[in-house]
Amino acid sequence: VGPEALSLWKSKSTFTSFGVFFLQMGWGDLGAFGEPSKETPNLDQMASEGMLFLDFYTANPLCSPSRAALLTGRLPVRNGFYTTNAHARNAYTPQDIVGGIPDSELLLPELLKKAGYINKIIGKWHLGHRPQFHPLKHGFDEWFGSPNCHFGPFDNRALPNIPVYRDWEMIGRYYEDFKIDLKTGEANLTQIYLQEALDFISKQQASQQPFFLYWAIDATHAPVYASKHFLGTSQRGLYGDAVREIDDSIGKILKHLQKLGISENTFVFFTSDNGAALISAPKEGGSNGRFLCGKQTTFEGGMREPAIAWWPGHIPAGGVSHQLGNVMDLFTTSLSLAGLQPPSDRQIDGIDLLPAILQGKLIDRPIFYYRGNEMMAVRVGLYKAHYWTWSNSWEEYSKGIDFCPGQNVSGVTTHTQEEHTTLPLLFHLGRDPGEKYPLSFASDEYQGAMERISVVVQQHKVTMVPGEPQLNVCDKAVMNWSPPGCEKLGKCLKPPKSDPKKCFWPH
Amino acid sequence: VGPEALSLWKSKSTFTSFGVFFLQMGWGDLGAFGEPSKETPNLDQMASEGMLFLDFYTANPLCSPSRAALLTGRLPVRNGFYTTNAHARNAYTPQDIVGGIPDSELLLPELLKKAGYINKIIGKWHLGHRPQFHPLKHGFDEWFGSPNCHFGPFDNRALPNIPVYRDWEMIGRYYEDFKIDLKTGEANLTQIYLQEALDFISKQQASQQPFFLYWAIDATHAPVYASKHFLGTSQRGLYGDAVREIDDSIGKILKHLQKLGISENTFVFFTSDNGAALISAPKEGGSNGRFLCGKQTTFEGGMREPAIAWWPGHIPAGGVSHQLGNVMDLFTTSLSLAGLQPPSDRQIDGIDLLPAILQGKLIDRPIFYYRGNEMMAVRVGLYKAHYWTWSNSWEEYSKGIDFCPGQNVSGVTTHTQEEHTTLPLLFHLGRDPGEKYPLSFASDEYQGAMERISVVVQQHKVTMVPGEPQLNVCDKAVMNWSPPGCEKLGKCLKPPKSDPKKCFWPH
Repeated sequence: VGPEALSLWKSKSTFTSFGVFFLQMGWGDLGAFGEPSKETPNLDQMASEGMLFLDFYTANPLCSPSRAALLTGRLPVRNGFYTTNAHARNAYTPQDIVGGIPDSELLLPELLKKAGYINKIIGKWHLGHRPQFHPLKHGFDEWFGSPNCHFGPFDNRALPNIPVYRDWEMIGRYYEDFKIDLKTGEANLTQIYLQEALDFISKQQASQQPFFLYWAIDATHAPVYASKHFLGTSQRGLYGDAVREIDDSIGKILKHLQKLGISENTFVFFTSDNGAALISAPKEGGSNGRFLCGKQTTFEGGMREPAIAWWPGHIPAGGVSHQLGNVMDLFTTSLSLAGLQPPSDRQIDGIDLLPAILQGKLIDRPIFYYRGNEMMAVRVGLYKAHYWTWSNSWEEYSKGIDFCPGQNVSGVTTHTQEEHTTLPLLFHLGRDPGEKYPLSFASDEYQGAMERISVVVQQHKVTMVPGEPQLNVCDKAVMNWSPPGCEKLGKCLKPPKSDPKKCFWPH
Repeated sequence: VGPEALSLWKSKSTFTSFGVFFLQMGWGDLGAFGEPSKETPNLDQMASEGMLFLDFYTANPLCSPSRAALLTGRLPVRNGFYTTNAHARNAYTPQDIVGGIPDSELLLPELLKKAGYINKIIGKWHLGHRPQFHPLKHGFDEWFGSPNCHFGPFDNRALPNIPVYRDWEMIGRYYEDFKIDLKTGEANLTQIYLQEALDFISKQQASQQPFFLYWAIDATHAPVYASKHFLGTSQRGLYGDAVREIDDSIGKILKHLQKLGISENTFVFFTSDNGAALISAPKEGGSNGRFLCGKQTTFEGGMREPAIAWWPGHIPAGGVSHQLGNVMDLFTTSLSLAGLQPPSDRQIDGIDLLPAILQGKLIDRPIFYYRGNEMMAVRVGLYKAHYWTWSNSWEEYSKGIDFCPGQNVSGVTTHTQEEHTTLPLLFHLGRDPGEKYPLSFASDEYQGAMERISVVVQQHKVTMVPGEPQLNVCDKAVMNWSPPGCEKLGKCLKPPKSDPKKCFWPH
């Protein structure tokens, strides 16, 4: 596909809609990426009809910051989704978090709205649950889902159960009105989320409305669940059942687009917010293939993600790309497809992937691996330099919390925060995707690669202006005691007295 | 494909030829199996035109025994390709081995020959190099390759360089007449082996002769090599260069079959003789994906292999099979396709895979994981029970010899031979392909699975009649000093006095 084709679709299409599937799934969970049970026929077909990205990353090894990065096109350290309570700590938005997405951030749906798009989020928002952070105040027109993870059941005294929203108001709570059976793993939430997606697409197609659908469902996040029809159907246990149901749902959504005749006008992307949570394995944790460690870490297993772009008639079927990509690129790429410019008053980290997707180009760009306020590592080309290494603390590890089960690379998967800033640990990810064999410091290869990388890092550090950290303060009073709409349902709970404290982030 | 189709091809085809690609490659080395650089377009296409086997095994974690098993359809412990010098030791056929394939064994080419097949081996024979073990004395009509691995260069005093044979006689030696540059990794051997294959196929097609081509090349076995055109072309370094050249060669062989119009009459199978040698990683070792450990071990990384069946017009394109398969099945399956019966006077371990390949059936059969004279583990369905665990000895490990680099599963990857015969370690390979989470002995699942497995193991042990071990005695006098044909080349060397000793097998 050359520039001619690019201008062809621009002239042919009156609009391009967007679908983003954003889940927690590991690189190795898809058949197309080598999962031995090969139970994802729909995602595999999506890949064979579209383009598989083999070197695609999330912006953070944890969910909230990655989601903030996707929607803002900016690193969490810029958009505020990080903590300074301690060095290099992962943070997210539990119920007692005081912060959330700042008003000053411009989200993809806000920008698309100005171009006439209707935007819907289905599933987990995770950018703050206090009123000012509501997704409908940040560009979304519709919401079906919840502000936090589906943890619980809680007692509604010490902790309230998480609300499920339709648009502005809650319509019930998990475990009370939206059942999740923690014993059997049964819940029909994915089916509900699927139906929401199909209905939304139908409605937009009927009204010839360009749309952005952000399908951010959570069946593969602990506590893992699947609906009755899928329970017990996977070789992989409950986690595999959840993957199969998601795979089936994505297949149905893509077929729906085709049936409605709008698949050639809809750019769809599938990826993940962090690596598989190996800590929940084997029952509730997925696979990062041969990559090192998982969620919470800045090793490849924590941040390298499965990724597929699908856009029949535009993306050559069966394409494979080694473009270094990042979830933040979906921000810039979507704007580009909508004919919009990214904001010029701030640093945008996402790049426009269209030259890579439509013309097979390789754009030179680094990948930064942040954990909280620290740049832990950077990838330039096939080289990855670790400036800091850490799996988790000895204290947490001694409790049985292991982010790298069965994997131990001496001096790499360290249990103290090891600083390597003067002499970074360098890996060649082509020869050594598992980060097991650091290059010799004395080698010419090390010297040559580090010269190149140092320039990139210096440039990054010099221009870095961190945002105001949003994930520092926790307060039980801000929990989902009385979300909007609770009165109608008789589900308002009385919050305790405000008592803001520094959040404790052990990882 | 039903039984009708099966009889259809039988009536349509006058004969079915066979091609077996038998290499050392890890499960994770193919793009189709999730290698992140995805550099095997021809093998991936072979899979998409044929059938991918996800649960296919070799008969031994080391080369010689696996090759003997493929050609006899029998476990090494039956066909003699094992040692009793020590407990549970891997053994093979180095230059000083006295033994080799016994005359009493019936090899696939011997049986096919009676049905009019012309049989050729290209590459590494590895079933003994003394005159009585010559492949042309065991059913092959042609040979181009060598009896042993391409180790060297040797000094022709303490050790002779390995000969390269054409049919009955040597035509030169590695490093002398067939160059391998150990510094750059350059060697054009794969190109020679490719040309041999193309020429052989052309010749058989011209004479309407059914054939069996056994392409057993060794570019991915240390010392790894590639020809100039492929050197430096892979993201993965020299090993990747070798894989790319093999992939390219296999693509050319398959295209050749198609061009000659005999692809629908040729059943082709690709697989590996043992898992990737992680000990040679990263420069010369491949990938076993997310499986545990590698070559030399009875963990999944040592014995689970990439496998593809290809037979256009018969095997449904893009098929995937979870049939538990084994290289020994190629013996039985080939006989079945040739309309022959396997020998009835001995135990054959291979099964006929045609119902799995042509009708999608799943045949219930166990996989036995042997190391030398010991059954270390058994797989029944998705359960794998370890009766013995061992990676390698502390002594070898302390020298830096590590079969599980970066992997350490406590109580599993043990450095002493651990006996678990009274209470086997049990893994569920669907939920836990990486063998990291043994099932609780007290669980109902453990009890139920072990009841089933115990019956299988008892049956196996009761009926097991081990063959005479062939890999016990070593003698420098039997080395390749004066192979047939050396006189013509002036390359005969004087053997030392015979001094037979027990071979030392450290692993």
